Amino acid sequence: MMRRARARLGILAAVPVLLTAVGCRAPADTRASAPAQSSAPAADPLPSWNDGPARAAILDFVGAVTTEGGSEFVPVPQRVATFDNDGTLWSEQPIYFQVLFAMDRVRALSAEHPEWKTTQPFKAAVDGDLKGLAAAGEKGIVQLLATTHTGMSIDDFDAAVRQWMTTATHPSSKLPYTRMTYQPMVEVMTYLRANGFKTFIVSGGGTEFMRPWVEQAYGVPPEQVVGSRGKLRYEVRDGKPQLLKLPELDLVDDGPGKPVGIAQMIGRRPIAAFGNSDGDFQMLEYVTSGPGRRLGMIVHHTDADREWAYDRGSHVGRLERGLDESATRGWVVMDMKRDWKVVHPGP
Amino acid sequence: MMRRARARLGILAAVPVLLTAVGCRAPADTRASAPAQSSAPAADPLPSWNDGPARAAILDFVGAVTTEGGSEFVPVPQRVATFDNDGTLWSEQPIYFQVLFAMDRVRALSAEHPEWKTTQPFKAAVDGDLKGLAAAGEKGIVQLLATTHTGMSIDDFDAAVRQWMTTATHPSSKLPYTRMTYQPMVEVMTYLRANGFKTFIVSGGGTEFMRPWVEQAYGVPPEQVVGSRGKLRYEVRDGKPQLLKLPELDLVDDGPGKPVGIAQMIGRRPIAAFGNSDGDFQMLEYVTSGPGRRLGMIVHHTDADREWAYDRGSHVGRLERGLDESATRGWVVMDMKRDWKVVHPGP
Repeated sequence: MMRRARARLGILAAVPVLLTAVGCRAPADTRASAPAQSSAPAADPLPSWNDGPARAAILDFVGAVTTEGGSEFVPVPQRVATFDNDGTLWSEQPIYFQVLFAMDRVRALSAEHPEWKTTQPFKAAVDGDLKGLAAAGEKGIVQLLATTHTGMSIDDFDAAVRQWMTTATHPSSKLPYTRMTYQPMVEVMTYLRANGFKTFIVSGGGTEFMRPWVEQAYGVPPEQVVGSRGKLRYEVRDGKPQLLKLPELDLVDDGPGKPVGIAQMIGRRPIAAFGNSDGDFQMLEYVTSGPGRRLGMIVHHTDADREWAYDRGSHVGRLERGLDESATRGWVVMDMKRDWKVVHPGP
Repeated sequence: MMRRARARLGILAAVPVLLTAVGCRAPADTRASAPAQSSAPAADPLPSWNDGPARAAILDFVGAVTTEGGSEFVPVPQRVATFDNDGTLWSEQPIYFQVLFAMDRVRALSAEHPEWKTTQPFKAAVDGDLKGLAAAGEKGIVQLLATTHTGMSIDDFDAAVRQWMTTATHPSSKLPYTRMTYQPMVEVMTYLRANGFKTFIVSGGGTEFMRPWVEQAYGVPPEQVVGSRGKLRYEVRDGKPQLLKLPELDLVDDGPGKPVGIAQMIGRRPIAAFGNSDGDFQMLEYVTSGPGRRLGMIVHHTDADREWAYDRGSHVGRLERGLDESATRGWVVMDMKRDWKVVHPGP
């Protein structure tokens, strides 16, 4: 549903239609803590991973590209890794968390909009009614996002996201969204950075929705967040310069839009990419088709007990082509149930 | 001329209409050499600067924001500085170097296009005839840029720029363009990075025109280059993924477009900005109107002997509003003739 919605948007609505959301620990990718080239980590760098082919693939890749004099050595400036967010770094069920943010936002603003109580898709949002929202269709979700993500300054939007992240909880787990990140993936990012990598997020979610919290959650600074984005307008209002979020899409950073976002924002081809859905297919293809050693990995949601189990035909994070072609393309599929000792970080 | 051309472009032509070009030394802003917070530099960090208010302003600013416990201390992640390129980091006369690149490119491709010998603006480009090019007007320059900057992959364009930078020379100085950077400004960037800053280029020039050489010239990695850009299309051609440069503008990173580019690509407000023309006005305004200590500086081209002297009414790098308002806005005007011991780097 979301994907079709985005495809039909043209010059339409809110920054994102694929979305995102949580945050807690992780050493930051900042200059003060910028790591030098180290090869042999002292302690286990991936304590939340079970032994197996996925863990081995990560360790083997990092060992190969950081071994000076080795045939697969990669100089530090070229050590760039990209990570999808929804379903790769945090959960995305029952729907992308950015949609849940939009619904909560409508609820928070509903006192000023009495008409929303009787008009869809706003009524569904106010009622927390996911089925009603689904019934409103793509058009409804686009309308919801446009209403809650545009027409304000980026600073005001930033404040709204920060406020939500510190107060909102997930509808089924009842956890703060910052507790629904994937601990094993945060360890991968930290491990890569300790080995000279720059880690970027490349997500269909809105850039401005992610930036307020991903530095704390994943150690990724704002300038390393590539997401969907709307157009902005600079204006000086009451003597105060600000950037206004406009209801016009500038980039849908999903599918073939991901290599475009990477080229625009990063400007060199990463050597490692991590995704979970067919929206990551082109990113994985672009990254792993470059010369030299490459790593492409897919999070497969196989754990209905600890998280969710879904792939083919799912309304979020649909994974079909990635499963069909991973073997021939040399991509490593991470099996959440098999490979991860823990899923989410502890309190 | 260039500015009007861009304003009228709408969804038109090449990535850039303001442009850029050179490269040589400067320690890189990479992870391996990432600096820690240091306060007192051992040697003179600005050896190419004469004593005076401009040099003092830089030293004073850096001292204030890096003094832990001081009232104006700024944590490392927020130490972001942005630099215009044309006229701020390298020369821009007799016309933006990216236009000279486009003219050389037309010459290089002219054997395949016999019709260019008799058709403007291509004839002027083939003949190296700047007056003829000027006579072809904005439309001519746009046509020249569209022809030379789009319709190829970003990898092919990158190769063409690299080739040009290693072989082309400036029409009057006869120097390679890498020798027409400003040594004092490269020192400022290096000094800021040694004090925990991330340095970004924010230029009207094309992002993809700058990325191939600015890392070597200024120590700025590709992901820290914000420029004008055209739309890209991802496609797999003969099994090879590539990004095609389309003849449709995505961002004109000049004037009010600079704060937009900063918000999109950096995601936080810089605390220092350096420019030279009224195309940098909004960037300076946006950066220096934030809370806490800020630094806004303008390169004033006053040295007709060692470089060029121009400001009001110039066809490139026009500086009027910046001169008129610098005092009231607290921006520091660097006088090239007075403040710089040397202009360009030595051989």
